[in-house]
Amino acid sequence: MSVTRAGVVAAATNVGLHVRHTPCMTVEAPLPGTAATVPVVLKLESLQVTGSFKPRGAVHSLLSNGAPEVVACSGGNHGLAVAWAAQRLGRKATVVVPASAAATKVAAMRACGAEVVQHGDIPAEAFVVAEAIVAERGLPLVHPYDQVPTIEGQGTLGLELLADAPQVTHWLVAVGGGGFPAGVALALDGSGAVVVPVEPEGCPSLFEAQRAGGPVPTKAEGIARTSLGPPSLGDLAWDVLRDRVPACTLVSDEAIAAAQQWLWQSTRLVAEPGGATALAALLSGAWEPPPGATVGVVVCGGNADHLP
Amino acid sequence: MSVTRAGVVAAATNVGLHVRHTPCMTVEAPLPGTAATVPVVLKLESLQVTGSFKPRGAVHSLLSNGAPEVVACSGGNHGLAVAWAAQRLGRKATVVVPASAAATKVAAMRACGAEVVQHGDIPAEAFVVAEAIVAERGLPLVHPYDQVPTIEGQGTLGLELLADAPQVTHWLVAVGGGGFPAGVALALDGSGAVVVPVEPEGCPSLFEAQRAGGPVPTKAEGIARTSLGPPSLGDLAWDVLRDRVPACTLVSDEAIAAAQQWLWQSTRLVAEPGGATALAALLSGAWEPPPGATVGVVVCGGNADHLP
Repeated sequence: MSVTRAGVVAAATNVGLHVRHTPCMTVEAPLPGTAATVPVVLKLESLQVTGSFKPRGAVHSLLSNGAPEVVACSGGNHGLAVAWAAQRLGRKATVVVPASAAATKVAAMRACGAEVVQHGDIPAEAFVVAEAIVAERGLPLVHPYDQVPTIEGQGTLGLELLADAPQVTHWLVAVGGGGFPAGVALALDGSGAVVVPVEPEGCPSLFEAQRAGGPVPTKAEGIARTSLGPPSLGDLAWDVLRDRVPACTLVSDEAIAAAQQWLWQSTRLVAEPGGATALAALLSGAWEPPPGATVGVVVCGGNADHLP
Repeated sequence: MSVTRAGVVAAATNVGLHVRHTPCMTVEAPLPGTAATVPVVLKLESLQVTGSFKPRGAVHSLLSNGAPEVVACSGGNHGLAVAWAAQRLGRKATVVVPASAAATKVAAMRACGAEVVQHGDIPAEAFVVAEAIVAERGLPLVHPYDQVPTIEGQGTLGLELLADAPQVTHWLVAVGGGGFPAGVALALDGSGAVVVPVEPEGCPSLFEAQRAGGPVPTKAEGIARTSLGPPSLGDLAWDVLRDRVPACTLVSDEAIAAAQQWLWQSTRLVAEPGGATALAALLSGAWEPPPGATVGVVVCGGNADHLP
């Protein structure tokens, strides 16, 4: 089974009934090393229910599998989204997260009625525990990125980009396990718009996959590791991304923190490190818009514990 | 000279060149005392440059008066907006604020190159100093609410409401000196949509004007006093509002703080007390939507020092 654009379009019915259609806003962003600014369209997905794009995939997964009880493994945002979706749809969820997951996210999962298990420092370690629970209890796993309904649900964000900002030629999107950029890239198929993938230097899963010709075990380090640090890029995501996106741009933790600062100072938006990673590529100059480009950036997560 | 809808429409040319067209987003808000939610359109003006609606009036005022140097008096947001507009347009600004103005706002004014004078605890005390500087230096005052270009510039937000959310029948808008709701109400003239005015219990300038039949000296107390606590409602605003808006709804400081909390928890938006005052009327039940209403709320300021 593979993910398709038709699947993304079909998912929009499920997703649209339960999550927000988040807005876009055009801002002037400074170009590094110059006094010039460039208009940039921000997709404000950090304002989504539960504070990230994850409920798009969670809702579609739960409506697709129909199970009364599910297990999720997550750096935090996916787990919170599954907890929220389960509560909303009258299901039960058990969520496994690393101990490094933000306290606010864990508290929010519990407030949604989920059972939360904390284990390890990075998502890879929590995965092992989640798989054990799945095997022991015979429950379906709602995967954070390497399952068809997850990717197709997350891709519905791309349909909103096409509807609300068709002028954008290059959408900067952060990559973790790759399901989100894969879904968005599928949604953009045929539009002429390109997904420009961005990863933290500490979590280069797509970067390494592009070098190796396929997903390989990848380190998960730095300030965005809980949200963008999977054990490796997902296989389903690789099938979509391999022919659809240019070489992955890497950004430093300093660039990510600076992007969080700029967002707050200039727009009063709060982004967590993973949510500001795509913007960091533009503001730091790690990625430069080609001549004639109209640039968009997906701000994909706002679950921070404090102002930057 | 009086403010007119034609003046608001004309101001949109000046304003649109310099400030953001901020987005709207529909969310589900809880109705107090019930398990039900109601769809509410939020106008995200807290994401405006400088973090509030104020630059709309500041830019239009500076472009209208053409003076190379101006004085502004402000609880904070208007002064920051004038400082920002002066820098952008190559002018010089002196801003007088109460000592209670948020440190972040004062720092931002100075970063824009403005001379900042701090005096007194509430805007009324700072007004006296501003007027002395105006008299001494022979400079024009850019008034925060009781001048035609200020109101017409601020009213351009209402044109965006009409364009982006024409389905809304009732727009909840916070009232300080009244210029902002007056401009917005003018913009909505003929649309059938109504501005529902909301004030903190500690700053009831419109509430008292409606009781007295005109503006009267008004207390400025509570957590929103620096942004919503003028010495009295503006005369120009009263001329507009007297026949256009229903009785003012008052909300407690507790309701305002709860609205700030709800906004952050449910949407990852940061609002300062004055920016969450309109929403507080809905969430607290102080104002109840009439049957068949489609409700909108203007979130008008995001310059907070910390997360709620």
